Amino acid sequence: MTTASTPQANPSKSLPPVDAKARVSQLVQQLQDNICQALEQLDGKGRFQEDAWERDEGGGGRSRVLRDGAVFEQAGVNFSEIWGEQLPPSILAQRPEAKGHNFYVTGTSMVLHPRNPYIPTVHLNYRYFEAGPVWWFGGGTDMTPYYPFAEDAAHFHTTLKQACDACHPHYYPVFKYWCDEYFYLKHRQENRGVGGIFFDYQDGQGQLYRGPHPNGNAAAYSNEVGTLEPRTWEDIFAFVSSCSKGFLPAYLPIVERRRSLEYGDHERQFQLYRRGRYVEFNLVYDRGTIFGLQTNGRTESILMSLPPLVRWEYGYKPEPNTPEAELYEVFLKPQDWANWGKEVS
Amino acid sequence: MTTASTPQANPSKSLPPVDAKARVSQLVQQLQDNICQALEQLDGKGRFQEDAWERDEGGGGRSRVLRDGAVFEQAGVNFSEIWGEQLPPSILAQRPEAKGHNFYVTGTSMVLHPRNPYIPTVHLNYRYFEAGPVWWFGGGTDMTPYYPFAEDAAHFHTTLKQACDACHPHYYPVFKYWCDEYFYLKHRQENRGVGGIFFDYQDGQGQLYRGPHPNGNAAAYSNEVGTLEPRTWEDIFAFVSSCSKGFLPAYLPIVERRRSLEYGDHERQFQLYRRGRYVEFNLVYDRGTIFGLQTNGRTESILMSLPPLVRWEYGYKPEPNTPEAELYEVFLKPQDWANWGKEVS
Repeated sequence: MTTASTPQANPSKSLPPVDAKARVSQLVQQLQDNICQALEQLDGKGRFQEDAWERDEGGGGRSRVLRDGAVFEQAGVNFSEIWGEQLPPSILAQRPEAKGHNFYVTGTSMVLHPRNPYIPTVHLNYRYFEAGPVWWFGGGTDMTPYYPFAEDAAHFHTTLKQACDACHPHYYPVFKYWCDEYFYLKHRQENRGVGGIFFDYQDGQGQLYRGPHPNGNAAAYSNEVGTLEPRTWEDIFAFVSSCSKGFLPAYLPIVERRRSLEYGDHERQFQLYRRGRYVEFNLVYDRGTIFGLQTNGRTESILMSLPPLVRWEYGYKPEPNTPEAELYEVFLKPQDWANWGKEVS
Repeated sequence: MTTASTPQANPSKSLPPVDAKARVSQLVQQLQDNICQALEQLDGKGRFQEDAWERDEGGGGRSRVLRDGAVFEQAGVNFSEIWGEQLPPSILAQRPEAKGHNFYVTGTSMVLHPRNPYIPTVHLNYRYFEAGPVWWFGGGTDMTPYYPFAEDAAHFHTTLKQACDACHPHYYPVFKYWCDEYFYLKHRQENRGVGGIFFDYQDGQGQLYRGPHPNGNAAAYSNEVGTLEPRTWEDIFAFVSSCSKGFLPAYLPIVERRRSLEYGDHERQFQLYRRGRYVEFNLVYDRGTIFGLQTNGRTESILMSLPPLVRWEYGYKPEPNTPEAELYEVFLKPQDWANWGKEVS
C-alpha cells in the first residue's frame, strides 16, 4: 500500500526516500502482474507458468513464461530483486562512486515472440539500482516488426511519447534518440527495429542522455533539450511509472490489428531469419544480458529473451521492391515515427 | 611452390623467415581447398559456393558455403588474409609489443553443421599473426556431438594426439587441456562438446599454455609438461601443418559411421536445441568472432559459423537415463578421450 504514500521529506533532492526499494519493487512486480494478466487475456489460450527462484549471493525473482499460445509462440516476463557485495565491472566503469559498496537492483523485463510474422516482437525493461551513495533508474521499451506497417510504428511511438510528455516534454526526444542509438547492430549496420524509448543512469541530475556518442545527436546534449533542472527521486519514479503504464496501450492495439492476417511459409521463414538479429543483439550487445551473466544470474531467466526458433542464412538479401526490402530500407533506420504522415496531411 | 622450400637461414630463433606470410597463407588456402574437396566428395550432393571478397582497410578472403547437402545442412569454410594499421584492443591486451605496429593475419576457419543428429558438429581454425616485433600461431579443432558415442570422441582425440605427438609429446596434453578450458560455457557450466585441441600465442617461446586460469591445471604450467626449450618459427609451422592435416582423418570416419543411422523428430529437436549452445558460445565467448567483428570484418563470413536452424527452450532438462542425459553427464565434461576404454581392456 506504499504506492499512495506521500513523498518522504528529504533534505537533499538527490536522496531516495526511506521506502524507495520497496516502492520500486512493488511497482515492477505490479507491472509484471498487469502485463501477464493482459497478455493471457489477449492470447486466449496460453497460460503463464511461474518459476520462483532464489540467488545464492542474495535475492531472487519470479520468472514467467507462456508458450505455444494462440498469439504468442513465447512470452517471457521476469521480475527480479537482487543484492550483493559489489556491482560488476561493466557498471562500475560507468558509476565509479558505487565501487566498494553493496548494491541492490530490482526490475521487470519482458520479451514477446508472437507466432504471426505480422505482429512485432516487443521488449520492455524497467529497473532501479542503489549502491552506496548512488541510485538510478533505467529502462525502456522498443518494438521489432518483421513486416512494415507504418501505422503500427507510429501508434507505438505516439503512445510512448504521451507517457513521457506527461512528465516532461524533453524526455521523449532524448530517450527516443537514445533508443535508436542503443538498439543498433553495428556489425549489421541495422537498427534492431523501430525503437521506442531507452534511458539509463537517471539519477535526478540535469543531463538526460548518458550514451556513448556525444557527437551523434547535438540536441540530446544541448542545454535546450538535453539538460533539465535537477529532479528528485520522486520525479524519476513518477516518470518510470508513467512509462511502464504506457506499454499495454502502445502494443495491444497492434496485436489486435494484425493477429488475424493470414501468412504463408515465406513470411514465416523471414520472421525466423530476422529473429536471428534479436539473438545477435542480445548476446553481443545487450547490457541487461551481460549484467545478468556477469552477476551469476539465473541463466534460464536471462536467456528467456531468445526466440524459440531461429534461422540463419548466409548472404541473405531481400528482393527489391518487396515488403522485406521496405523493412530494411525504412523500418531498420531511425525515423520520426511520432510525426509519421503528419507533414503530408 | 614454397611448401618444399628449405627453412631460411635465420640468425635468431625467434624471427620468421622472409617468406613466412606467403607460406602460411598457402598452407591455410590449401587446407581450405583440401577440406572443401573432401567434404563435397563425402556429401555426394552439396557443392560449395564461393564468394571472394575484399576488405576496405586491407586484404580479403574467399568464403565457401555448402548448403542443403545430403550430409551437411550447412558447411562453411573461410579463408582470409587481412592487414591493417593496428590490432584491436582485445589482442593488444595480450600482446602489448604489437601496439603501434601494422598487423597481418591469415587463417582458415570452418564449422560443419550436419543434418543427422548422430553426426557431430565440428570446428577448425588455424591462423597466423605478425605485428611489428611479434608473430604467433593459433588454432585448433574441436567436436560437438549431439548424441553420445564414446568411440567417436576417442577416435577424434586419438587422431589429433597422433598429429601433435609427431611434433612433440607435450603438445597434446597441454592443448587438449586448453581446449577444454576455452570451449566452456560459464553461464551453462557446460563444455561445448568433447573438445579436441586449442592453442594461441605460439611464438616459439618455452611456455605452451597461455590461458587465463593458472590454477586450473598445474601440469600445463609445470616445467615437465608445460615448458619446452624455445622453438623456431619452422617448428611451430611444422606443428600447425601436422595438426591441419590431422583434421580429415579425425572427422571423416565418424561421419561415415553415423550418416546412415535413422533418427526421428525427438533427436532432431534435441539437435536444434543443442545448437543454441553453439550460438551462445560463438556470440558471447569466441575470440575469432569478436576479433572479426572488432576489425570490421565481413559479417556474413564471420557468422557463417551459426547454425541454419536453432531452437531455444526455457528450462529444458534431459530425462534421466536417456542418451540426452548421458551427453550432459559425460560428454559435456572434460574426459581423457585419447585413453578412453584403455584401462578396462
